[in-house]
Amino acid sequence: MTERRDYRSAGVDLDAADAALDGIRASVAATYDDRVLAGLGAFGGLFDASGLPDRPVLIGTVDGVGTKTRVAAATGRWDGIGTDLVHHCVNDLLVQGGRPLFFLDYLASARLEPETVVRVVRSVADACRGVGMPLLGGETAEMPGVYADGELDVVGAAIGVAARDRIVDGSAVTEGDRILGLASGGLQTNGYSLARAVLDGAYDAPMPDGRSVADHLLEPHRSFLPAVAPLLDAGLVRGAAHVTGGGLPGNLPRVLPDGLGATIHGGWEEPAIFGRIREAGRVPEEEMRRAFNLGVGFVLIVAEAEVARVRATCPEPLIDVGRVVAGAGVRWA
Amino acid sequence: MTERRDYRSAGVDLDAADAALDGIRASVAATYDDRVLAGLGAFGGLFDASGLPDRPVLIGTVDGVGTKTRVAAATGRWDGIGTDLVHHCVNDLLVQGGRPLFFLDYLASARLEPETVVRVVRSVADACRGVGMPLLGGETAEMPGVYADGELDVVGAAIGVAARDRIVDGSAVTEGDRILGLASGGLQTNGYSLARAVLDGAYDAPMPDGRSVADHLLEPHRSFLPAVAPLLDAGLVRGAAHVTGGGLPGNLPRVLPDGLGATIHGGWEEPAIFGRIREAGRVPEEEMRRAFNLGVGFVLIVAEAEVARVRATCPEPLIDVGRVVAGAGVRWA
Repeated sequence: MTERRDYRSAGVDLDAADAALDGIRASVAATYDDRVLAGLGAFGGLFDASGLPDRPVLIGTVDGVGTKTRVAAATGRWDGIGTDLVHHCVNDLLVQGGRPLFFLDYLASARLEPETVVRVVRSVADACRGVGMPLLGGETAEMPGVYADGELDVVGAAIGVAARDRIVDGSAVTEGDRILGLASGGLQTNGYSLARAVLDGAYDAPMPDGRSVADHLLEPHRSFLPAVAPLLDAGLVRGAAHVTGGGLPGNLPRVLPDGLGATIHGGWEEPAIFGRIREAGRVPEEEMRRAFNLGVGFVLIVAEAEVARVRATCPEPLIDVGRVVAGAGVRWA
Repeated sequence: MTERRDYRSAGVDLDAADAALDGIRASVAATYDDRVLAGLGAFGGLFDASGLPDRPVLIGTVDGVGTKTRVAAATGRWDGIGTDLVHHCVNDLLVQGGRPLFFLDYLASARLEPETVVRVVRSVADACRGVGMPLLGGETAEMPGVYADGELDVVGAAIGVAARDRIVDGSAVTEGDRILGLASGGLQTNGYSLARAVLDGAYDAPMPDGRSVADHLLEPHRSFLPAVAPLLDAGLVRGAAHVTGGGLPGNLPRVLPDGLGATIHGGWEEPAIFGRIREAGRVPEEEMRRAFNLGVGFVLIVAEAEVARVRATCPEPLIDVGRVVAGAGVRWA
């Protein structure tokens, strides 16, 4: 990665670090395409941007995966964390109509265990490859005293692009527009502080489907790129929101014009983990709605007249989430 | 920032978080120019890239400031950390001839103290403004259990651009080329694990200039943009390296063609903090050279015949560091 993931500066055991680097290199290189002019070993990754659309607008977003890392650390299951990180960032690009160009990652821990580093970076790289986005650069830092033992943080920055006249900013949204949703399948990367407070120590408990609580908590954050891209191509999206921290009440208003709000129908099938959290923690519904996506990971705002075309264009089923109404705020019907 | 720096998802005290956001907002907005189409509050920051050069190459780099954060935490002096972060990343762009476009930052801690958040993000924003680079997005995360109490990590990603035919990649470097250096003034952001091991507990001790050890350790990482940009404009730079972890022996070879190495003259004036570390820790010279920049923060490789023009074009004095020689490796003369 850029900075050579310079373990030397971090005082890591060099043999172990070299082994880790070897383990990373191939998976990172596998994300490259002919737009990558320099990657591993360079001070900065170089990305040929000569193929950008006319009047390009670059979109930049940075995020972590929150304390989902603590579930990964508690269970030793790091392989999905990179997927979570990459997909979270890609979905944030999609909200404004952006397509991913490239990704940068940062991984830090009190003491870098090469095996964990390899697993996390590989999962980042594999997810990047899955969405066609080179992992252009990265940094791995050993920070004794800053991180708690056995924990790590992983941060990603995704850079995307949209043509200026195709930016989705919600300005076209009007009263009566429909709000359609894509299924999250799980918590994505938000609400883990609450989820862990309620479920800590019960990670091995079985859920109705036979999988464990940990399996459900570690359900990967989906990429909504395959579902949303055809809708963007067809110009069918008036507004979009990624249902991250704050849930629907926190995220929908971010893309609604002043004076407009939303009525949520509810009634869609909720992944079982949310019911488990609700019951085990006796969490009030209001708090559930603000902490979690409750099964709707991404919402699209489309014209009422185009709903049928939207459904026909989208390669997966769309949840009937609600409707744009006059008056600010998000209310459940 | 993008992601609204969504404290809600992190379970932070909302009143305190809102106060912190207010404190950040103005300094972040002050980094904007008319290329920023969306910033604070959006899912991703939008940057108008219609003014990029022909055949643009985007450069992406991500980094932290290492355990310099621990010196900041120990002394409560966070105001320079943002400068360190921003300048480190900008210098990494310069190595390949890149100019900064925009910046993204991430700040995480076990528990976010609004005052510290404001100070760090303000310092990031102020440094961004200083180099003419909008702080396009950011995220602030509270990660109890992941970070040690009172510590924080701060990560930055800088996106830059260079025209394809102006990329500096070292391929033009030949035997006999001169290596000129820019003064670092201090440790920049590398070698802090060793420096702290040697100097921990002695942060208040006076240095010969009357300033404290902590003052010297927290000396901000310089931006070499003002010094290097005119040289890039004039096409005078054959190769460049940012002297980060690994020192000159670790970083110079990254930009030298195969089969070429460097002879280092030494003899330049070394900031006093390095002597203090060397003596207090009885650190072998070999280790000093690999851990620290020893006063040379950035090196430029230029043609012998152009040294006079380079010196005349650069707005600050250039250190005579050494010469490119046949045979791999970096040796002190």
